[in-house]
Order: sequence, then C-alpha cells, then structure tokens
Amino acid sequence: MTKYNFSSRVPLTNDNPFGEVLTVASKPSIVSFAGGLPAPELFPVKEIKAAAEAVLDEYGQTVLQYSVAQGNLHLRQLIAKYMKTRGLDDDPQNMLITTGSQQGLDVIAEMMINPGDKVISERPTYLSALDVFKTYGAETVGVDVDEHGMKMDDLEATLKQNPETKLVYVVPNFQNPTGNSMSLDRRKRLVELADEYDVLVVEDDPYGAIRYAGESIPPIRSLDHNGRVIYTGTFSKILAPGLRLGWASAAPELIAKMLLLKQFEDVHTDNLTQFVIARYMETYDMQAHIDHITAEYEKRGEAMHAAIQKYFPAGTELTHPEGGMFLWVKLPGNPDIDQIFDECIQNNVAFVPGAPFFPNHPETNTMRMNFSNRSVAEIEAGIKTMGAVISKMI
Amino acid sequence: MTKYNFSSRVPLTNDNPFGEVLTVASKPSIVSFAGGLPAPELFPVKEIKAAAEAVLDEYGQTVLQYSVAQGNLHLRQLIAKYMKTRGLDDDPQNMLITTGSQQGLDVIAEMMINPGDKVISERPTYLSALDVFKTYGAETVGVDVDEHGMKMDDLEATLKQNPETKLVYVVPNFQNPTGNSMSLDRRKRLVELADEYDVLVVEDDPYGAIRYAGESIPPIRSLDHNGRVIYTGTFSKILAPGLRLGWASAAPELIAKMLLLKQFEDVHTDNLTQFVIARYMETYDMQAHIDHITAEYEKRGEAMHAAIQKYFPAGTELTHPEGGMFLWVKLPGNPDIDQIFDECIQNNVAFVPGAPFFPNHPETNTMRMNFSNRSVAEIEAGIKTMGAVISKMI
Repeated sequence: MTKYNFSSRVPLTNDNPFGEVLTVASKPSIVSFAGGLPAPELFPVKEIKAAAEAVLDEYGQTVLQYSVAQGNLHLRQLIAKYMKTRGLDDDPQNMLITTGSQQGLDVIAEMMINPGDKVISERPTYLSALDVFKTYGAETVGVDVDEHGMKMDDLEATLKQNPETKLVYVVPNFQNPTGNSMSLDRRKRLVELADEYDVLVVEDDPYGAIRYAGESIPPIRSLDHNGRVIYTGTFSKILAPGLRLGWASAAPELIAKMLLLKQFEDVHTDNLTQFVIARYMETYDMQAHIDHITAEYEKRGEAMHAAIQKYFPAGTELTHPEGGMFLWVKLPGNPDIDQIFDECIQNNVAFVPGAPFFPNHPETNTMRMNFSNRSVAEIEAGIKTMGAVISKMI
Repeated sequence: MTKYNFSSRVPLTNDNPFGEVLTVASKPSIVSFAGGLPAPELFPVKEIKAAAEAVLDEYGQTVLQYSVAQGNLHLRQLIAKYMKTRGLDDDPQNMLITTGSQQGLDVIAEMMINPGDKVISERPTYLSALDVFKTYGAETVGVDVDEHGMKMDDLEATLKQNPETKLVYVVPNFQNPTGNSMSLDRRKRLVELADEYDVLVVEDDPYGAIRYAGESIPPIRSLDHNGRVIYTGTFSKILAPGLRLGWASAAPELIAKMLLLKQFEDVHTDNLTQFVIARYMETYDMQAHIDHITAEYEKRGEAMHAAIQKYFPAGTELTHPEGGMFLWVKLPGNPDIDQIFDECIQNNVAFVPGAPFFPNHPETNTMRMNFSNRSVAEIEAGIKTMGAVISKMI
C-alpha cells in the first residue's frame, strides 16, 4: 500500500481521546455531562422552519445561488445591531460571516501563525483551539486563570519570555472549560499588554449572551483602539449549532485578509443558513429566546453546583459560573481520572477528563462538567451517581 | 495604526482582478458570460423547500444540533449510491462530507503540501485551486492540455523535472476553463505515472454529471488500485451552489487525516443542508433533474458555439465541449484583452480574460466563456455584440 508523505501540519496519529470520550458518552443509556451540546428541546424548530419556508418562497433562486465571501450584507447588519446590545458597536463592513466560529479561529491562525510562532492561551482552554494553533505550526503556552480570568501578571511574564508570540487567545465569558469570566480590569490590562508586546488578541465569545447572574462586562474588542482585537461570535449556543454560522469582527485590514483565506476554504458560508438566520432575527425576538434558554441553563447550572457540593467528596473544588454551559471540578488528592471515567460509564454517567484542556502541564485531577444538555432531574440523579463512584475510588 | 505581521500564507495584496471582473460583470444591465454560475431558474426551489419542511418537521432537534465531522452516514450512503451511477463504487466510510468541494481542495492541500513542495495542474486550470495551493506554500507548474486533456508525455517530463511534486491536480470532465475532458487512455496513464513518481492525484469533478454529448468516461479514482487518487464532488453544479455541500472520497488513511483537518476548520458541514440534500435525493429523481439541466445547457452551449463561429473574427479558435458550463476562446493575433473587456462592458456584455487561469506563462489572447447562466436568446445577442466589439479592435 502507498505510504503517504503528509505535510507537517497533519497530526501524526489519528488518536482523538476527547472524541473517544464523546463517542462512549453518546450512548443513549448514558446521562452525559461530557459534550458541549446545547439543550435540543429549547431549539426554536418551528420558527426556523417558518424562516426557511419564507426565504425559499420569497428569494428561492437567490438563496440557492452562489453568494459573496464576506457574507450577506443584510445578515451582517442584523448581527451588528445585535452586537450593539452586547456592548460592541461595529460596522457590518468590519464583519466576516464564517462557517461557525471554529472557522473564524482557523482563518485567524492561518493568517497570523508561521511555524515556530507561539500563541498564549488561558490554562486550561478550549481544546479545539489548541488543535488549530498546532496545525499551523504554533506552540501554545498556557497562562493560569483564577475566578477573574487570565492572570495579567503571569501573562506579562509569559509575553516577556516568549517574544515569538503572535496571538493571545482568550474566552472571556463563561470560559470553556472553567465557566469563569475575565474581569473588566483584566480586559483593559490585556489590551494594554497587547499594544506593549505587539500581539493580537483573539476574543472567542460563544457563551457571553448566556448570563444568568452578575453584571455584563464589555467585550475586549470594545476597549481596543489600535485594531489589535479580533472578536469571534457564533449562533451555536444561542440558536442552533447544526446551523454552522458564526462571525468575526476586526479592523478592516484584518477582515480583508481573513476574507481571502475564508474564500479559499469554502467560497462562502451556506446561503440557506445565512438567509434563515437573518429571517429568524428580523421576524422573532431573539433576545427573548436567549433569555428563555438562559433561565433554563441557570436552573441546570445551579442544580449541578448544588449537587456536586452535596455528593462529591470533601475537598472537591468547583467553579460557580454566572452563565454559559460548563463548570469545572478539581478532585482532592491524586485520583486516577481515567479509571473514574470508566467506572462512571459502567454506572451510565459521563463527564470529560480535564487534562486535554491544558496546553501544558495538565492537571489530571480535573473534570469539565456540562450542564446545558440535561434536565435538572437528570443532573441531580447523575451527579449523585458520580459522587458515589468518586467517593468509593479516592 | 498597528502594522500587522501576517503569516507567509497571506497574499501580500488584496488585489483580486478576477473578483473585480465578476463585480463589474454582475451589474444587472450586463449580459454576463463571466461567472461560473448555474442557471437559477432551473434550481428545484419547491423541492428543496419541501425537503426542508419535512426534515425540520420530522427531525428538527437533530437537524439543529451538532453532528459528526465525517458527515451524516445516511447522506454518505445516498452519495455512494449516486456515485455508482457515475462509475465509482466507493464505501460511504471512505467518504468525507465537505463544505463545498472547495473545502475538499483546501483540506487536501493542507494535508499534503509543505512550503517548497510543488503541484502540477492542467494549464490553464481552475484559478481558485491555484490560490489554495499557493496559500499552503506550493508552486503550481502547468502542463499543457489539448482536446483530450492533460498531455501525458509533458506530464512525465514535468514530474521528472520537479521531484518536489506532491499532487497532480486535474479537472477531468468539461474542465474549467477549457470545457475539454481527459480521455480514458490518459486517465489510465495518469494513474501509472502517479504510482511511478509517488504523487497523489486530485480528481476535481464538479461538472462530470452534466454530459450532453459523447460517452461518459470512468472516474480516475475508479482506475486506481493504490489509494493515490482523491475524488472531490459537489452539489453546486447539479443542484444548488448556495447549499455549500460537497464530498471527497479516498483511501481510508487519507480520509482519516482529512477528517481531522476538516474538523479543525468548521467542526462539521451545515447539518440543515446535509439533511435537506439527503431528503431531496431520496424523495425526488435527482437524475431526472440533472438530465433536465443538461438538456438546457446543451442548447446554451451549442448556441454559444455557433454564435462565436458566426460573429467572432476569422482565426478565432474555440473548444467544443460535450458538457459542463464553459467554453474557451483564443483570439487571433495579440489583442489587448483588457481593453476588449472594457469595451465589452461599455456594450453591456462580459466575459473573463483567460490569463489568470494559467499557473505560468499566461496566454493573454484567451477568454473563458460561461454559457449556463444565460438564455439562448441572450447568448445569441451577447455574442453578436462581443463579435462586433472584438472585430473592431483587432
């Protein structure tokens, strides 16, 4: 058989431990807190269907024809209007429609990273971002977080030590995986440091709209006056992830380059989905829908927090998010988390071991817990089961 | 203002002469033969709408939820069945759903090309493929074509001269831009040469189903026994390009790597569009639809061919395609094609200058003519106008 001579971008193995965890956890018998899935019973299926009917009735030939790489202007205008309510006043011209915010991250990395460059991220961070940065040849260096987000003194020290740094990647709101948010002071400091050390900031914000407690904090991009912050957004968590639609907003010079690379990747984002979401946004009250899912996620998040406090062993540390879809657990001592995972699966409950979320120095006593995809009753029963398994094993 | 330190992948300028041609040509007053657009009046809008309604009614929550990176199995099975009718018997496991075949090309290039590698293509070729190869660091070397496709003796000489070659990229059916197809003998020889020189073949086949004359020729991948050929297909030309849906089929080891890189790019392809196209394929007679558009494109292609023979100056050479969407014109002498373009625009008719389709040594007396997007009457009137402009100017 042919021996293939792959490029250096290609992962050497096809191993995907995280994917295997999700596959095991997706068996119907299992109550899974593993994936990052929104609650499907809250999807506005009827409204999406009505929007699809309307746009195919009214503009069928246009919907099904090729469109422009930057994305439909009308959709960009609607997103710009929505982003104003989120604290970011951006011109639709400074916006690129992407095939999910994942494509935004991919294009940003492709645009900025040469092999040997570095990226700085929160430690832990969104693991598919680590995959993307690695693909384009960057090593990612983690900076520790606390309940107010990335530690800015540590960031400065890390920037000093790593002059090859091109990007600082952060998920400032209800971060994946910890659930914590970055404070306003640190956001301001991050922009100052980006200027001082001549790096760009990638502000990845899938969860920011899902806030059920505390005060909303301005987007980092709104604090930036030198075109150093690229914001990426998505409809995956507020509307429906099966519709692959996100956006990026940035300085015009950056958007122009991203547009070229995006066009090479997939010409433009699915036009039916662009029309459907635009129609949804102008016909229905999207904010009311977001408020609805946020209220439900609050119940689930609070139920999970309370159940972990009740059922997990003494010495367990956990975050207490004010929104989003995840909380983060550190077990006491030095447990064998893979064995705990296997035993949980035997008991029909699943989580994600935290180690893969660390760009370096993985903390193997950690777990990411998703609370958006299960009912309060399932959360209470599942956490009780997990608590019993863990207490037995550590 | 910030001076950005882009990666070496990023085009130095944002110049896009081809894009500018298309923008100028897209004015409603202009009869354009410039773009590569299918005929929108032939899109099965009602059927797509019915399919969207049905899948959202029956599986709404699944349609709107995250899905798997390889693409929905049911859709892959339907495509495998369709590809059997096209002469390629492939397991759905050897297939990856992509966000248009453009994403297939992007992922293949990302998988195989290190900076300094080379790609061999037809000369001329699909220009967005050239962009992709360049982005990942490859120089593309062109091999001349005649009415039977890429010249295999020239290919062998080029492979010998360029041992850094990783990929041979071909559009074997009704090639963009020439409209010609590669003969069976040359396809067989191409597979032999790929084995001998240890390169992969990318068989990009957007147009193969749209054959209105001559005999269908087996896909190159069906002639390959060593996993050297990657086939890329798309619904853009047979169904609707606004639905960004394509596929790649290849040896399992290649699909496994492509799947990882595709997942980094956009997680998975739009799920609504995957469901809609699967439902369309199992509910309607897609082959009847393809036959319908093919019959219409035959009328348009033949009308354009006849009109160019009638109205263009003596000495004009042109191809006579048996299918697809394009024909290719060489004007006599050494005309100033940009001036001809400007004068055509003044007369409300447009084409694409051929030079950008050449990876090297552009032939500046060439023009790509699209016949799928305009009625026979518009074609006859538009070509008459172009003939008068050109005859005046050369």
